[in-house]
Amino acid sequence: MKLPGQEDFGHSSAHENVLAEELDSGLGPGPGLGGSSDTDNEESGVSQDPLLFIQLNELLGWPHALEWKETGRWVLFEEKLEVGAGRWSAPHVPTLALPSLQKLRSLLAEGIVLLDCQAQNLLELVEQVISGESLSPELRGQLQALLLQRPQHHIQTPGIRPCRGSSAFRNASHDEDPPLKHQNPLRQKLPPGAEAAAVLAGELGFLAQPLGAFVRLRTPVVLEPLTEVILPSRFFCLLLGPPTLEGSYREMGRAAAVLLSDPQFQWSVRRASDLHDLLAALDAFLQEVTTLPPGRWDRTARIPPPKCLPSQLKRLHSELQEVTGLSPRSVSQAEDRHRHGQHTPSPELQRTGSVSQLCSTFTWPQSQTPSLLGVCWEMPLKVPRDHSLDYLPFRLWVGIWVATFCLVLVATEASLLVRYFTRFTEEGFCALISLIFIYDAVGKMLNLIHAYPIQRPGSPAYGCLCQHPGPGGNASEWTSTKHKDTDVLSVHLGLVNASLLSPPECIRQGGYPHGPSCYTVPDIAFFSLLLFFTSFLCAMALKHVKNSRLFPSVVRKVLSDFSSVLAILLGCGLDAFLGLATPKLLVPTEFKPTLPGRGWLVSPFGANPWWLSVAAALPALLLSILIFMDQQITAVILNRAEYRLQKGAGFHLDLFCVAVLMLLTSALGLPWYVSATVISLAHMDSLRRESKACVPGEAPHFLGIREQRLTGLVVFILTGVSIFLAPVLKFIPMPVLYGIFLYMGVAALSSIQFMKRVQLLLMPRKHQPDMLLLRHVPLSRVHLFTAIQLACLGLLWIIKSTPAAIIFPLMLLGLVGVRKALEWVFSPQELLWLDELMPEEEKNIPENGLEPEHLFSRNDSEDSELMYQPKAPEINISVN
Amino acid sequence: MKLPGQEDFGHSSAHENVLAEELDSGLGPGPGLGGSSDTDNEESGVSQDPLLFIQLNELLGWPHALEWKETGRWVLFEEKLEVGAGRWSAPHVPTLALPSLQKLRSLLAEGIVLLDCQAQNLLELVEQVISGESLSPELRGQLQALLLQRPQHHIQTPGIRPCRGSSAFRNASHDEDPPLKHQNPLRQKLPPGAEAAAVLAGELGFLAQPLGAFVRLRTPVVLEPLTEVILPSRFFCLLLGPPTLEGSYREMGRAAAVLLSDPQFQWSVRRASDLHDLLAALDAFLQEVTTLPPGRWDRTARIPPPKCLPSQLKRLHSELQEVTGLSPRSVSQAEDRHRHGQHTPSPELQRTGSVSQLCSTFTWPQSQTPSLLGVCWEMPLKVPRDHSLDYLPFRLWVGIWVATFCLVLVATEASLLVRYFTRFTEEGFCALISLIFIYDAVGKMLNLIHAYPIQRPGSPAYGCLCQHPGPGGNASEWTSTKHKDTDVLSVHLGLVNASLLSPPECIRQGGYPHGPSCYTVPDIAFFSLLLFFTSFLCAMALKHVKNSRLFPSVVRKVLSDFSSVLAILLGCGLDAFLGLATPKLLVPTEFKPTLPGRGWLVSPFGANPWWLSVAAALPALLLSILIFMDQQITAVILNRAEYRLQKGAGFHLDLFCVAVLMLLTSALGLPWYVSATVISLAHMDSLRRESKACVPGEAPHFLGIREQRLTGLVVFILTGVSIFLAPVLKFIPMPVLYGIFLYMGVAALSSIQFMKRVQLLLMPRKHQPDMLLLRHVPLSRVHLFTAIQLACLGLLWIIKSTPAAIIFPLMLLGLVGVRKALEWVFSPQELLWLDELMPEEEKNIPENGLEPEHLFSRNDSEDSELMYQPKAPEINISVN
Repeated sequence: MKLPGQEDFGHSSAHENVLAEELDSGLGPGPGLGGSSDTDNEESGVSQDPLLFIQLNELLGWPHALEWKETGRWVLFEEKLEVGAGRWSAPHVPTLALPSLQKLRSLLAEGIVLLDCQAQNLLELVEQVISGESLSPELRGQLQALLLQRPQHHIQTPGIRPCRGSSAFRNASHDEDPPLKHQNPLRQKLPPGAEAAAVLAGELGFLAQPLGAFVRLRTPVVLEPLTEVILPSRFFCLLLGPPTLEGSYREMGRAAAVLLSDPQFQWSVRRASDLHDLLAALDAFLQEVTTLPPGRWDRTARIPPPKCLPSQLKRLHSELQEVTGLSPRSVSQAEDRHRHGQHTPSPELQRTGSVSQLCSTFTWPQSQTPSLLGVCWEMPLKVPRDHSLDYLPFRLWVGIWVATFCLVLVATEASLLVRYFTRFTEEGFCALISLIFIYDAVGKMLNLIHAYPIQRPGSPAYGCLCQHPGPGGNASEWTSTKHKDTDVLSVHLGLVNASLLSPPECIRQGGYPHGPSCYTVPDIAFFSLLLFFTSFLCAMALKHVKNSRLFPSVVRKVLSDFSSVLAILLGCGLDAFLGLATPKLLVPTEFKPTLPGRGWLVSPFGANPWWLSVAAALPALLLSILIFMDQQITAVILNRAEYRLQKGAGFHLDLFCVAVLMLLTSALGLPWYVSATVISLAHMDSLRRESKACVPGEAPHFLGIREQRLTGLVVFILTGVSIFLAPVLKFIPMPVLYGIFLYMGVAALSSIQFMKRVQLLLMPRKHQPDMLLLRHVPLSRVHLFTAIQLACLGLLWIIKSTPAAIIFPLMLLGLVGVRKALEWVFSPQELLWLDELMPEEEKNIPENGLEPEHLFSRNDSEDSELMYQPKAPEINISVN
Repeated sequence: MKLPGQEDFGHSSAHENVLAEELDSGLGPGPGLGGSSDTDNEESGVSQDPLLFIQLNELLGWPHALEWKETGRWVLFEEKLEVGAGRWSAPHVPTLALPSLQKLRSLLAEGIVLLDCQAQNLLELVEQVISGESLSPELRGQLQALLLQRPQHHIQTPGIRPCRGSSAFRNASHDEDPPLKHQNPLRQKLPPGAEAAAVLAGELGFLAQPLGAFVRLRTPVVLEPLTEVILPSRFFCLLLGPPTLEGSYREMGRAAAVLLSDPQFQWSVRRASDLHDLLAALDAFLQEVTTLPPGRWDRTARIPPPKCLPSQLKRLHSELQEVTGLSPRSVSQAEDRHRHGQHTPSPELQRTGSVSQLCSTFTWPQSQTPSLLGVCWEMPLKVPRDHSLDYLPFRLWVGIWVATFCLVLVATEASLLVRYFTRFTEEGFCALISLIFIYDAVGKMLNLIHAYPIQRPGSPAYGCLCQHPGPGGNASEWTSTKHKDTDVLSVHLGLVNASLLSPPECIRQGGYPHGPSCYTVPDIAFFSLLLFFTSFLCAMALKHVKNSRLFPSVVRKVLSDFSSVLAILLGCGLDAFLGLATPKLLVPTEFKPTLPGRGWLVSPFGANPWWLSVAAALPALLLSILIFMDQQITAVILNRAEYRLQKGAGFHLDLFCVAVLMLLTSALGLPWYVSATVISLAHMDSLRRESKACVPGEAPHFLGIREQRLTGLVVFILTGVSIFLAPVLKFIPMPVLYGIFLYMGVAALSSIQFMKRVQLLLMPRKHQPDMLLLRHVPLSRVHLFTAIQLACLGLLWIIKSTPAAIIFPLMLLGLVGVRKALEWVFSPQELLWLDELMPEEEKNIPENGLEPEHLFSRNDSEDSELMYQPKAPEINISVN
């Protein structure tokens, strides 16, 4: 949640940077530095241990039909074979009983430990393992044969569609053919270089005493029939014994597999030189296990994988903390930076950057979108417009002044001010825009209903007659064309020179419609309402399809990504099906200046007095504030650290482009600037890269943005080309568009934390979610903060709606001032949790004082590190 | 999910009953037999240990400002003091580090253990504890003063509204006044007889070596300022030491508190006679803890309380299993029975019972509800109706025959057949009813739209004139009353004897309307659609308010319980506001037979030939099947074990009442039988009792049904009285009612497991929920079962829609046959998971063969016991 600008001046003091580097260098290749989140580390180039696939083969069927059967597998999480259903269970966090770990420890302590074994295949391996045992030759032979026996694998993976080959896989467990290399879908999910480990466990009646063996191969070798996935095996663990301990070998096998799947144990055991090291690694593991009391947690409950794995750095942090005095939060920040493999942004903001901002200053459907800031930026111009001046020349001068001010802002590096835009300001701005969307959509719908009034039973008489010009006028012509039915009816009713033709038909035939209901079109109002709600609800529903369990993820992604488009298509389809005369999108059919009689260029003076050119500076000043705020807040949101952008931001360059374009559009009389927030964020969202090949249980994680300059350009070229699409666009009913605007407003509003806090106002304390800020700030203070935000928003809204609207941009900027004033009301600690810190505040916090609970919780393991984890980007204002 | 009838013949063999009793008697007062779920046990009268409230007081501020502060508390789950926010955290499953448990063990082993201490107050207790220590007298005095110091309590509880006293509680932590007895809300949540335990932990610089003490008081004593809640304390644990081990005393204190909150440890330690017993109990605890690997689970993540606590019986079951050979499932069943404190139902079904079924045979709005079975039961009567016989006498004979057949069914105890109604049949029946609701609602809406056609632009001319009788007729009268505006207009248009009055006004004035649009009412169609969707969506949304986090639970419960009523009110309000002529509910205003000219009693013969009285037996037979099935399926659902009804079911009595009422209603020509499923279940749902005073983290659990005969009677008296409510009811627009019917259908359909399986068809394997049946049955078999159910449903629907509808009741009964035939397709194990077993099948399963995985998983701790837990009742077909 750090803004890039802010991070530079704030948290990232030199002290911390040094520490972060220490962490990087000292621990980089160390124990399991994200042995889990490899994709990141692959990118950042940290050399590390390969991922391990672990398989548990159980010995079943003693004494009659001995066979090995794969009953569990691990990469990050455990998958268990559901024997009855013949499928892998959902991946879950493995749970162990403490005794099985202890029994495993004692078995290994007494058993055979071969580290750096040189075996080239399974036979050699087995021979080496057995040779250490004191068995009769006969038993030795039996055991060897048993260990070489091909195990039954279950190759079905949860990722596979159920329809394909589902009948085949039911018999897979009885299938003696080896699984084909390319058929195992898990193989594709494992990164190159992955290794395997095999754990063999079971009860064997002819053994007199337990047999435990742990083997690490010097060079990993494919132990052909042993593992389901054909990978070179690094570890081999054998746990056999007489059937005395009820089922404990299975649990010991699971314990061994879970141990091997732990990154830190794995790191240690790869580097262990003797039994002592192995046991030390096991003991270290035991010191760190989480235990749940048996009376409050059922061991057999399956815990779904956490959204984010605990980082291995965290496991070292208590030691680190002792050495460096780092607070957990700064460790986690340092670690964040490490994880992203990203440099801290340099303090200068003047960077060359993407021109997507530039592109987004072009827009086409300005006249139709609830004009984001459009609603606001026309305000400074309200006064001149009311006095019916020569508008376009005045507007040109405003544009010239705005461009000048913007250039001044660029020259003075005023963009540095963005560091004062905290979440408070961002959310206020975002909420305002959302409310404008909602207000506009509903307001326009109401206008539309007023334009097509509903006929109530009590309203004046029905009826509309078509009156023809004069009794004897051109009656002959009229008679020849008139409609047969209405003619008969007219005669029957004794009408002299009138008929019951419909108004358009009447006008076409030279008559004129007359009567109270001639100009009311029935049904349109309610049908428009239906279209409005249908498109709104449809867009909302389709948006949520993404989180549904139904359908393959591709289908869900398409439905969700194109929710607005599909909703519009549905609305248009409904409208076309019924063929009612709903109001449609008005698109000019010709490419020319709308005002008749003016050229492409606006003349700089026209009919205005000369001093108006100077007076235009005042509205221009206010407009500049608006544009600056809109432009920079958008840029700040887009450049958040969580998006992991590689290319730098272009705050100054963007503003420069805006200035130049202001000049250009003013001179041509084109629409000015359009708020880029929504489209830019939607654009960014569409360019997300997420990891594809996830091992079971791993959530796809955000990799970054596909940074390029093509899509932005093409989007706006296509937007430009759309002026030739008038024949298609005129089929879009307005209510459908209003419904989509409502959806956009509601979606944007519900995505910000501010709304979550507003909900807290209505939520009984018992039901409040476990938010980090609620853990650290008293509820009354949270409510106070929310109330202040609500009050600001209300004030802004009132100003916007009254004649005082001209000072609206100043008030918007005033949000920053209000936020600054809040430092008097709230402590820095509270603001840290509720918002973010402004540059100066951070200096006011004493060392180590960021955690108010420091006094009470020395071993600050209170807040789950997961809650501090960098989230995947969350688009605040999203369209699609 | 066992039906009461089925349980009698099936699972509960004598063998198991004996075992269940063994469990009851042997373990009844044993270790923590639900030390957690007390409310149940209080009812069943099992004597048990009191609930324990445990508080952790931490010593903070060394060396300057020593003070005790309550930082954690436990009843079932852990609540931690959020120091920054000044509130209790949400209750969560406590997690511990293994080392803190081990350190605690060694500290206790070396420390002072006083069991059956006789202290009468805190001073005596402290003196006894300190006397055992080898301290200098000065230090001893300091320590004693410290231990007697009043700790800071935090008395705020999550259950309290945030608004009340929120400013007060912020300073509560600095408040030196003792918390008032009646102000602590937690006290009210603890059952009478609850005891307290205090754990004091912290670092104390002047101690040379750690000081550990564990005290059990012989008689619990209120140790006045020690605990937040004024309860007699049973245990006292002191863990102090020099500040060498970083923060570990706090963790050891937590470990001690968690240990004490464990029912089994508590049971042991209450009965421990020396240190050895105490350590043995701790070791037993350690043997059973669940461990989570550090690399896959962050210890600081807070785990929300499970919906259902693990039973303590489960913890004994492995030992039990060795002794008795019980499968886990039968243990859990035995335990179910034990837990409910409920007798297994006696094998005879002929029991006197509630007459709510009787009442529900009366209904009023039969003509309006999508006639549940009404849709079906008119079918047997279709043929006679078509031939325009004298209907009522024939109907009387059908009624007489139905009554006869029903009496025969009663006499032959045919209700025993309900044991063949498995979930397959129930769900088929329920799905059919739901589909009829949905189909009817949508169909009637479409009819309504056809009745009020939409005027398209291309449709014939507008206009409707009011023509007056003859040129000279009663023009004088007409002139005197005619409307001014229309008059002027009429003259202007050259109308002779016509005006533009609205049709109703025209008729009132003696004219008659003429023209193509006189009888089309605009806007009604779309407005009706709007009302339809509004009421449907509003009812759906309000129903889901129950699960929302917003609003206090009372508000949510009211909104959810009255969702349909509120939706209807909203619809009526909208309709009244706009005042459109939507079709309304037609209610007769007078209480008399609808058919003019007939008396209250139907004459038995009328105009029909005599043999029709005999022929009526055939439709009556089919109707009897329908009534039998509907009545008995409803009764089976209502009498499910999960509802914990105390009074027995009245299968035969209910059918007898139906028979008598059939006679009565036939003779009077009243509507016959109406399916009671929906209303009966809604009635039952409204009578649920749930536990109120839950300790933090405990979900309210279902206690049973308020069984009485008052509400049923009153409901139907009120229903009867509602015939006098015609003036109110006529304001309800029909589309609103259709919307509610649609909601009822959708709600009912989505509640059955069948629909969950249908969704599985569309769900990629990866996203499928972890359902118990998916763990045990191959997916293809699940899909096959679902497909067969779908096919049956489709067939039933087709039969219902074709002329073959007369055999529909037989086909409905055929569901039972299909289910029987499924035994040839599916193995008993599969049917056990997918459905339930029919009586004969169960005998076919070999001993211990119910678990197909028996071979592979000896120590069958695979399926979480939680998944077998008896659920709170889940209403399949629910209205409110």
